[in-house]
Amino acid sequence: MTDATAISISDLTELATEILTRGGFSHPQGAAIARTIIAAERDNCKSHGVYRIEGCLRTLKLGKVVPDAEPVLLQDDSAVVRVDAKSGFANLAFELGAPVLAEKTRKFGVAALVINDCTHFAALWPEVEALADQGLAAMAMCPSYATVAPSGGDKPLLGTNPFAFGWPRAGDTPYVFDFATSVVARGEVELYRRAGKQLPEGWAIDADGNPTTDPEAALSGAMLPFGGHKGSAISTMIELLAGAMIGDFTSDEALDFLGTTAIAPRHGELVLAFDPARMSGGRGNPIAKGEAFLDAIAGQGARLPSQRRFAARKIAMAEGISLSAAEMAQLHDLHARGLAAVD
Amino acid sequence: MTDATAISISDLTELATEILTRGGFSHPQGAAIARTIIAAERDNCKSHGVYRIEGCLRTLKLGKVVPDAEPVLLQDDSAVVRVDAKSGFANLAFELGAPVLAEKTRKFGVAALVINDCTHFAALWPEVEALADQGLAAMAMCPSYATVAPSGGDKPLLGTNPFAFGWPRAGDTPYVFDFATSVVARGEVELYRRAGKQLPEGWAIDADGNPTTDPEAALSGAMLPFGGHKGSAISTMIELLAGAMIGDFTSDEALDFLGTTAIAPRHGELVLAFDPARMSGGRGNPIAKGEAFLDAIAGQGARLPSQRRFAARKIAMAEGISLSAAEMAQLHDLHARGLAAVD
Repeated sequence: MTDATAISISDLTELATEILTRGGFSHPQGAAIARTIIAAERDNCKSHGVYRIEGCLRTLKLGKVVPDAEPVLLQDDSAVVRVDAKSGFANLAFELGAPVLAEKTRKFGVAALVINDCTHFAALWPEVEALADQGLAAMAMCPSYATVAPSGGDKPLLGTNPFAFGWPRAGDTPYVFDFATSVVARGEVELYRRAGKQLPEGWAIDADGNPTTDPEAALSGAMLPFGGHKGSAISTMIELLAGAMIGDFTSDEALDFLGTTAIAPRHGELVLAFDPARMSGGRGNPIAKGEAFLDAIAGQGARLPSQRRFAARKIAMAEGISLSAAEMAQLHDLHARGLAAVD
Repeated sequence: MTDATAISISDLTELATEILTRGGFSHPQGAAIARTIIAAERDNCKSHGVYRIEGCLRTLKLGKVVPDAEPVLLQDDSAVVRVDAKSGFANLAFELGAPVLAEKTRKFGVAALVINDCTHFAALWPEVEALADQGLAAMAMCPSYATVAPSGGDKPLLGTNPFAFGWPRAGDTPYVFDFATSVVARGEVELYRRAGKQLPEGWAIDADGNPTTDPEAALSGAMLPFGGHKGSAISTMIELLAGAMIGDFTSDEALDFLGTTAIAPRHGELVLAFDPARMSGGRGNPIAKGEAFLDAIAGQGARLPSQRRFAARKIAMAEGISLSAAEMAQLHDLHARGLAAVD
């Protein structure tokens, strides 16, 4: 790639922070958003990388996020810590709540972080990784926009509802997965549409509820959950736990609230954390037991999730993040013109 | 069915308890096992119904379960309650731990029940239903025997690792699902073998790791996780949380320990519970919000999980449980001859 520029993680984070703050975010909000976006770009996770900066600014421009929100932490003597994001993006809210979640998890063995009234655009893996880095196991989940039909149904109701899990590994990157509970993320269907390609079977139904491989028909119909009725059940669980239970939007309410899937959705989030040291009750070393099991998976030649990200991260940490000339040009345009550069 | 006998739930529970105690189980153990088995039979969930009685006796006959184990409850000021099943079946251990789990959940918002050193033959839905009946949301999971290859792998390593979830509904049966994280339970493959039928594609691989539709080849090879790499990841999470983390067997260790899949496996179990009233933080009524969402699913004509069980339960509660002459004969034989009637 002759047109690629290598830029250090810290320089790119600073540039992204500047773009976001010049665009109108407070420094704490902009910096937290930038850290998350650049972590994704660093891992070559382009779907959540620098191209999301414009989306965050668009959401701001449309008045659908409070750019200088100051999240408020609420805690009592329970094992639940709550952060009211005050209609800001979720990132700063998570950063505020995570240390308290970790502390409560060490105290109680298991604890929960509830984030309410946040705008959400990011993957969940940065969150479970942050907890795994502290030696904790973690699950994270949230609703999104109603674009997925429940198994046996014919209309969008569930979101793509991501589910993420992290498990600490000794002296290594953690075991981490993070996936949409739909067959694929909506962006994937959009890529097929732009490429003029037919979808694989089993991804979607049209507006009448019939199976379709036409991306246009799929986008005006509904995507399907992964794994049939089992994936549909897990997605429903996410609506109940990370929507209804925490007093926040389910995916249909999130879509009703904003009326479009073109900007970042508004909802809540649920993160659970476990302290393996406490959960094991002195019955051996849980991390060592985990290693033995994960090694047995890898020993079959099966790839553990997130390995591609970790490999890209290693390169980015040594050589900087490689961005194309077009990506750099867009960043410079956003930096120079601010919201005027946002469609 | 001219040969069917209707027997009341309580009479059948009493008969099962007598069979189990005459076979050698202590009364508390036998009664707890009988309650679980008859709950399954009542719901016409035959795979966990009366036919399991012989399996429990077989496990006892082979000396692989302690029939008069007295489970021990361990608790501290954390949100985790632990029950050491003392090598007995899981049922009595759960019954001992569940009230303390419920109490801790109300106190802390979220809490966990860890069961260690138990023998396990039952579905998990009775457990999440018992918690939902008390107004709590719950997740339950456990390893089993290594019979499933991880996605991308070629040898059995994961168990069929069931995952269950329950959510309380106002004035109705709860929202409950409980499924194997393999495409199907192992018993299903066995049914195809007995019927001389080929398996659908995507269920299994042979001993060389190649896809197979031959049930014999599948049984000596490995089953596959549901939903490809996503289901495989969830199953791995279950090994880590409900095996490694709680200081108990992963599915490969469980199989090593007993050396056969023909009797009930030995491992631990993890149950998480949530108090929606506390988790909602005063932001509306979580149960009412859940109802609205579940009604929207049902409003599309999509069936909620467990509805078939609940319908069967209603009939059994009104008319008794219907058993065939062969089933009744086997129960009477087990009752009369005890362990001598067990293969």
